[in-house]
Amino acid sequence: MPHIDFKNDFPGIRSAMAYRPETAKPLSDLAEILLRDSIGISKAERELIGMYVSHLNDCFYCDHSHGEIACIYLNGNRGLVEQVRKDYNNADISDKLKGLLAIAAKVQQSGKDVSAKEIENAKKQGASDRDIHDTVLIAAAFCMYNRYVDGLATTTPTEMTSYPLRAKQIVEQGYGSHIYNNQPVENR
Amino acid sequence: MPHIDFKNDFPGIRSAMAYRPETAKPLSDLAEILLRDSIGISKAERELIGMYVSHLNDCFYCDHSHGEIACIYLNGNRGLVEQVRKDYNNADISDKLKGLLAIAAKVQQSGKDVSAKEIENAKKQGASDRDIHDTVLIAAAFCMYNRYVDGLATTTPTEMTSYPLRAKQIVEQGYGSHIYNNQPVENR
Repeated sequence: MPHIDFKNDFPGIRSAMAYRPETAKPLSDLAEILLRDSIGISKAERELIGMYVSHLNDCFYCDHSHGEIACIYLNGNRGLVEQVRKDYNNADISDKLKGLLAIAAKVQQSGKDVSAKEIENAKKQGASDRDIHDTVLIAAAFCMYNRYVDGLATTTPTEMTSYPLRAKQIVEQGYGSHIYNNQPVENR
Repeated sequence: MPHIDFKNDFPGIRSAMAYRPETAKPLSDLAEILLRDSIGISKAERELIGMYVSHLNDCFYCDHSHGEIACIYLNGNRGLVEQVRKDYNNADISDKLKGLLAIAAKVQQSGKDVSAKEIENAKKQGASDRDIHDTVLIAAAFCMYNRYVDGLATTTPTEMTSYPLRAKQIVEQGYGSHIYNNQPVENR
């Protein structure tokens, strides 16, 4: 049961966003800018970074929400998503993405844990300063989103069929205001 | 030395924000909405919550930046700020704020660590659902800001006189765009 009365029945972060639309706006804007950019790091890769950090933070809702979005961008390759979640070093992804995921894993622990070693390795694999900036901020942002979702004990759907449906909406329409208000997406 | 070339000499989060103004906008907007609201939790109390989480995350820049902002709102009572930082249970603050700081400390560890016990206690001390929402999101947001600042190894001023000057600007002008771009505040 949620820790507060959201006055709505949305799952996960959507319940908190509908409860307080003022803060939902910058939270959505940040996701839109960080996750739907394709410069240097693809949309699929950005979602995988967010999913991986959520997995490390044991945030089931964000882990599976963003895993399903990545899955769509990866043409339904759920096996690859699962491999990144469980053991990215042996996944069929670029060495650059492996280098960025290593940075993200450090950020998940603490910003101070990111050392020159991870940065140098990512750069050696082709990561630009912008790629590193975005990776650190994606990982940091998911440390916020995950805490927001679980710190208020929002409702986590355990019916797994809901995640791909929601993922399709986000891929098609983005992280806009339709994700947190009460009107169905179809009516906009 | 910063992990990437920010192409500017700003300290702390300002260097990363000036480097990537697209993401700076929602990051600033979120701070403005969460920290400069006075409903239920005063501006001073909101800054103290952010400072305390930054202290727990060992983020010197955010800890002292927001401590100085709180200090201004508290009419220069730096002793109280220091007491909250080091041992808030014995500080001269309301029991409600103590209850909210207990929630924030759990969020700093993990959203999952917030239990019904902390929530019930805060409510007993007068915290509303909105107060609890804002506390969880302030704490979660500082887990992001702190990781952003330290994960990119931004420059931390050790000259302590710079913090009160900056704090005065933020108290007077807010967390607006002037905090991350290149023009001096005086010119706006």
